[in-house]
Amino acid sequence: MQKNRTLYNHTNWVTHRSSLRHVRHFFSSFSSRVILSLVPPVLFFTSFAAVIAAYNSAVWFHYLPEFFPVLRASSLPYQLTAPALALLLVFRTEASYSRFVEGKKAWTAVIAAASDFARLVMATVDVSGKGDFQVKKELLNYIIAFPIVLKCHVLYGSDVERDLQHLLEVDDIALIMKSNHRPRCTIEFISQSIRLLKLEDSRRSILESKITCFHEGIGLCEQLLGIPIPLSYTRLTSRFLVLWHLTLPIILWDDCHWIVVPATFISAASLFCIEEVGVLIEDPFPMLALNDLCQKAQKDIQEAIATENVIHAHLVAKRNYHSKEHSPNGWPSS
Amino acid sequence: MQKNRTLYNHTNWVTHRSSLRHVRHFFSSFSSRVILSLVPPVLFFTSFAAVIAAYNSAVWFHYLPEFFPVLRASSLPYQLTAPALALLLVFRTEASYSRFVEGKKAWTAVIAAASDFARLVMATVDVSGKGDFQVKKELLNYIIAFPIVLKCHVLYGSDVERDLQHLLEVDDIALIMKSNHRPRCTIEFISQSIRLLKLEDSRRSILESKITCFHEGIGLCEQLLGIPIPLSYTRLTSRFLVLWHLTLPIILWDDCHWIVVPATFISAASLFCIEEVGVLIEDPFPMLALNDLCQKAQKDIQEAIATENVIHAHLVAKRNYHSKEHSPNGWPSS
Amino acid sequence: MQKNRTLYNHTNWVTHRSSLRHVRHFFSSFSSRVILSLVPPVLFFTSFAAVIAAYNSAVWFHYLPEFFPVLRASSLPYQLTAPALALLLVFRTEASYSRFVEGKKAWTAVIAAASDFARLVMATVDVSGKGDFQVKKELLNYIIAFPIVLKCHVLYGSDVERDLQHLLEVDDIALIMKSNHRPRCTIEFISQSIRLLKLEDSRRSILESKITCFHEGIGLCEQLLGIPIPLSYTRLTSRFLVLWHLTLPIILWDDCHWIVVPATFISAASLFCIEEVGVLIEDPFPMLALNDLCQKAQKDIQEAIATENVIHAHLVAKRNYHSKEHSPNGWPSS
Amino acid sequence: MQKNRTLYNHTNWVTHRSSLRHVRHFFSSFSSRVILSLVPPVLFFTSFAAVIAAYNSAVWFHYLPEFFPVLRASSLPYQLTAPALALLLVFRTEASYSRFVEGKKAWTAVIAAASDFARLVMATVDVSGKGDFQVKKELLNYIIAFPIVLKCHVLYGSDVERDLQHLLEVDDIALIMKSNHRPRCTIEFISQSIRLLKLEDSRRSILESKITCFHEGIGLCEQLLGIPIPLSYTRLTSRFLVLWHLTLPIILWDDCHWIVVPATFISAASLFCIEEVGVLIEDPFPMLALNDLCQKAQKDIQEAIATENVIHAHLVAKRNYHSKEHSPNGWPSS
Amino acid sequence: MQKNRTLYNHTNWVTHRSSLRHVRHFFSSFSSRVILSLVPPVLFFTSFAAVIAAYNSAVWFHYLPEFFPVLRASSLPYQLTAPALALLLVFRTEASYSRFVEGKKAWTAVIAAASDFARLVMATVDVSGKGDFQVKKELLNYIIAFPIVLKCHVLYGSDVERDLQHLLEVDDIALIMKSNHRPRCTIEFISQSIRLLKLEDSRRSILESKITCFHEGIGLCEQLLGIPIPLSYTRLTSRFLVLWHLTLPIILWDDCHWIVVPATFISAASLFCIEEVGVLIEDPFPMLALNDLCQKAQKDIQEAIATENVIHAHLVAKRNYHSKEHSPNGWPSS
Repeated sequence: MQKNRTLYNHTNWVTHRSSLRHVRHFFSSFSSRVILSLVPPVLFFTSFAAVIAAYNSAVWFHYLPEFFPVLRASSLPYQLTAPALALLLVFRTEASYSRFVEGKKAWTAVIAAASDFARLVMATVDVSGKGDFQVKKELLNYIIAFPIVLKCHVLYGSDVERDLQHLLEVDDIALIMKSNHRPRCTIEFISQSIRLLKLEDSRRSILESKITCFHEGIGLCEQLLGIPIPLSYTRLTSRFLVLWHLTLPIILWDDCHWIVVPATFISAASLFCIEEVGVLIEDPFPMLALNDLCQKAQKDIQEAIATENVIHAHLVAKRNYHSKEHSPNGWPSS
Repeated sequence: MQKNRTLYNHTNWVTHRSSLRHVRHFFSSFSSRVILSLVPPVLFFTSFAAVIAAYNSAVWFHYLPEFFPVLRASSLPYQLTAPALALLLVFRTEASYSRFVEGKKAWTAVIAAASDFARLVMATVDVSGKGDFQVKKELLNYIIAFPIVLKCHVLYGSDVERDLQHLLEVDDIALIMKSNHRPRCTIEFISQSIRLLKLEDSRRSILESKITCFHEGIGLCEQLLGIPIPLSYTRLTSRFLVLWHLTLPIILWDDCHWIVVPATFISAASLFCIEEVGVLIEDPFPMLALNDLCQKAQKDIQEAIATENVIHAHLVAKRNYHSKEHSPNGWPSS
Repeated sequence: MQKNRTLYNHTNWVTHRSSLRHVRHFFSSFSSRVILSLVPPVLFFTSFAAVIAAYNSAVWFHYLPEFFPVLRASSLPYQLTAPALALLLVFRTEASYSRFVEGKKAWTAVIAAASDFARLVMATVDVSGKGDFQVKKELLNYIIAFPIVLKCHVLYGSDVERDLQHLLEVDDIALIMKSNHRPRCTIEFISQSIRLLKLEDSRRSILESKITCFHEGIGLCEQLLGIPIPLSYTRLTSRFLVLWHLTLPIILWDDCHWIVVPATFISAASLFCIEEVGVLIEDPFPMLALNDLCQKAQKDIQEAIATENVIHAHLVAKRNYHSKEHSPNGWPSS
Repeated sequence: MQKNRTLYNHTNWVTHRSSLRHVRHFFSSFSSRVILSLVPPVLFFTSFAAVIAAYNSAVWFHYLPEFFPVLRASSLPYQLTAPALALLLVFRTEASYSRFVEGKKAWTAVIAAASDFARLVMATVDVSGKGDFQVKKELLNYIIAFPIVLKCHVLYGSDVERDLQHLLEVDDIALIMKSNHRPRCTIEFISQSIRLLKLEDSRRSILESKITCFHEGIGLCEQLLGIPIPLSYTRLTSRFLVLWHLTLPIILWDDCHWIVVPATFISAASLFCIEEVGVLIEDPFPMLALNDLCQKAQKDIQEAIATENVIHAHLVAKRNYHSKEHSPNGWPSS
Repeated sequence: MQKNRTLYNHTNWVTHRSSLRHVRHFFSSFSSRVILSLVPPVLFFTSFAAVIAAYNSAVWFHYLPEFFPVLRASSLPYQLTAPALALLLVFRTEASYSRFVEGKKAWTAVIAAASDFARLVMATVDVSGKGDFQVKKELLNYIIAFPIVLKCHVLYGSDVERDLQHLLEVDDIALIMKSNHRPRCTIEFISQSIRLLKLEDSRRSILESKITCFHEGIGLCEQLLGIPIPLSYTRLTSRFLVLWHLTLPIILWDDCHWIVVPATFISAASLFCIEEVGVLIEDPFPMLALNDLCQKAQKDIQEAIATENVIHAHLVAKRNYHSKEHSPNGWPSS
């Protein structure tokens, strides 16, 4: 069920904007997961329309006793409530989309906090002894691990152990696995590692302010996961749609006769598809490329750790070069 | 009246997205609280439509004296104002939904602040004496108690005493119960406990900044509770709906005759249901799973307190192991 | 004109959600201030429709010379622009509602800042001499006074002197009254009181950051008061409505004949009511229960001041009890 | 072209809400700048409709050779796309309105930051020597000058020199005038003045955080000025409108005949007016009463400077009074 | 394909608001990139409509065997779903526009942070030796370079080396080019330069808080680039449009006959254009004048560096003048 989503890059955008996209989207319809999950309701309502149409035809051609009435009604009440249904559906979808955006922002913040946290640790923690060096190195690993653990916390059916195996040591992973709330346990690792490092108060409080970002990230993710759009709202849309499509064949009979069947099909396909998309993106995490995002963050931070010393050495060399070269000549003109 | 709401987990989401949801929602209609509370207005307007239809039929079949006119009118004015009514209704519902989102965010912030506050207290407060140890332990309990007290403050008919009984001591609970504003009183407990601990200024000010988060949480909750959507807006929607449905049978008579009765029923059921949902989620707190949220926060913080020492010991052991093992060999290659 | 608004409590919410609300709203229509202020325009357009209808009837029955034409037109152009009018109206109302929400948030922030400011002053200012004690006490009063002075600044026709009389001394009130910008003058009182207290730099800067919140509160309130929704937008809606209702009877004549009069009445009542609500909540302050809000804040802060010592003593007693009781026994097991 | 806009006060609001506003807005239509700028397009499309109507009449009365067809078409496609046009127009206007709100918020923040900055300088900078006194006085003037310089930066055709002449000295103004980016130059003046004052580090960093607010203000203003709503969006709306009104007379011919001319007039007037308002408020700065805002800020800050010493002296006197009066008696009972 | 976009100035705004804009936009239609990319789908659907119309005419004139039916259907189902399609399209466009606004805000923040960072470095870093002077100068260059590198990171096909060549030294550029993530590498340069400067802790932490802004900027940009609007939403809109236009000729046949061809043309042109604009501004970076923005930031910061000493000297001179002039006379009266 779960597709592996990837982050877009420049090439994807070019494809995304190409004029051929409509052809691509049209032909991918039959393999689309959204469309497939629409089959049951759309099939049901189309069959129902066919039944109504058959019944009405039977009545019309007097195949049924006289007292069976033709099922038909004026379309006026539907024309008056159609805008309300359309608005409700689209606003429901918008509400889901805002949740998607919220999830995206929460993860943007978590990843940015992790990157900045790693950079701060690299820049402000001076290590003297061997043990401290090890603590710093592991602190950086715990920071990289946090987004991964949080990802596994919000995604159904993910395997934390496999994702962490090349990053943390076995006994750390064991402790995290045993915990009831793994992201908080990872935070505890980070928090205790900072305590072990001998830091000045102001530096420590800066580092700890980053942990607050992680806590906020957990809070946002758990809120999105735990609290859906009010069920009464969701149910209202669903019931409204069902009621509308159950009565649609009756409404359309006078105008459309047997065309009521494709008309119901198209209406059901369109409106249930809007609703389906709304429900699909209501839980934003399976829709976000969290795996990619975490891997990219890990790679970026590890590259930063690798280049740190190169750049430091480069800059020190430059400074020394300038200090020596010009010092007897006094200050340069520029 | 008050249902016990629960936080969603991964399993709930799978059910939530399943194709069968429409069936489930349709058949749960008759036990739904929203639908039940719609019975009076919908029944009234349907009966009213039946009365109008009966009267019009009576006039039509000359059961009434000549001078009674058939009640009918052109539907054009309704077609012109239908989008305005639909928009008004759906925007009113949107405004309520934003209040729901606001409430959700306020609680997310409160819970995240409580977790982070507890972590900070654990990480930064070093206790030396027995009294201080006790103060720290109770401070953590007060922090856990704050969301619970705030929950009881915003939920109608909740029992603070029962919720706090296993957390705080009896005389603390007594002081909180006596207070006019219990959440602020809990903050006062937290604030005074911090004063009792001998902390450096910078640490104390970090801890106090968390209390500011709690104050903001109280402010947001009380604002949502105290200030509804402007009543003139709410009344406008309600009056517009009533006026519309009182005249609807007259408007539809020419097109629908006796079908005016089911048409009015469907229109009233749909539009009053939108309004009902809007009114229901206007006060967000009964709609949020606050009980679950507070219990989860309590459990998580208590687990963090329990694992703190384990992780600390684990990390110290690791550092010492590394310091000892490698110190004679100098720095490792990696 | 100015109704006294109150903060909602749990009981109000129960009434607010009850099924009977539609009945209540319907029967309160005739005493509603919004509705009363609609009487002039609605009456005018209804009369105008009646005049057009009378003229058209006169032409129809040949009471007028031949060359007078019947005023009638196709409704098609109106059907095409109706959604634009509806959207414009409802978006205009939404813009006003956002201003209401902004005002609500500004006040939530001011009240939360005042509460937190008072708590900080209580917790961080240690007084030694009699003069300092007095300064601290008055500082707390100035903090309580700020929301009240700001309330009077944004509400038309409020009496600052009466509201402050039991809070500040007569000569303080005199200085505030003389000032051109009373909320800023109150801030100056707060700022100078903080200067008088001998505080460490870090504490002082925390206290001063709260004054920044007050300044932001003033800024937000004055912006809402001073800058309405662009007048061109407001006028556009008003002119669109007037033009629409002046031509509506002509458009509807063919379909409705004399029913044009009630149709115009209902259309004008509905659409002008939406516009009226939009204009009414554009200035949010008279719609917010600011009096209640300030009184509640004052009461809450004064209660906090009163209970501070009780709680402090209670906690000190507890700590001492624990220190003594267990100190010979060493650390407890829990 | 540029009207002088003023800040609203309580009296303006009373007029704004009065029932007579519709009359006022209707009769001011002909002097309204928005309406005047609509004359060219509306005139063009009305004439075009007249030409089409004349041509169709000519065909109808056989004034033209047989092979000229009557220009007419079904209105159905227009009824189907009308909601899309309406939504597009109103959303485009909404996007402009959000820019207006953004501009308003940016200026609220700048003015609040200037006020708070001035208060901080007054409260935290203690001057000892004559030179320092002068620096402090000028720093306050630079702070007052910043909003004025920024205003002139974002308003077309404003005269910085005249606005600053009573505030800054001639050589300061000369330096600012020479600069390519005057607001940043003013910030440089503020920044260097702070450097000249001998301040502790923590105070200096608080003052400098206010400069950050000014930088953000510049950023927001320049972004609003430099980056309009995407031109493809604006052009889409404009082209859609033109295409719609060019074909409208053909669509309406069957229903309206010569009434196509007033119908096109009303449609063009309404829809182009919405678009015009959207374009007008897209650049928010000429629509905001920036002159008033800056003058008010200047007056308020100067009053605060003037009253600072009065209030300080008043509070010191009070404290001394209390210290002396009660000191022999010990602590008062309250 | 990529047009060079420029920042708007006052003159552009005057043109933007002029009444002639509609003429300009109309005549630029045929050179517009948006319009050109619409040619394939619009052409296809117009041809398809022509084919259907030809087939239906052939059936009508009995050119085809009897059993071929006329393809026609009632338009009622389309009237009922038209609002949903319109809303979906416009909301999709709105979602893209919010991404544009987000991108704009992210860049506003990055530019403001760079300006403020540069000012802070100028104001707070005192250099003593030659090497330090060089480090400070290069730190300023790295800060200027950051927005440029970030711009090249988010724009397809940009040339970092050329953009940086006059700003950084060749070996710095080489290091940045080799890096996998160039903006982070630039941050590393900034971070290490700060480490080289001997700064007090509080100043360093202020400077480092600006780097956090840069990290947030990277996070926001990468999120916008990597995570498009959910593809199911985008595809839904595209499929809905295709389905709608494939069936439109059948729906319109009864009303329009051969006019079905221009009607389909206009409908496809309008609705696909809305969709195209939505897709175009979904990736906001090519739509923003990032080149201009970076150049302007560079110029402004370099001017600030140039004027810094002038203003400092000017202010010192003024202070000394005042100190000397008045010192024997005591304090001035003002």
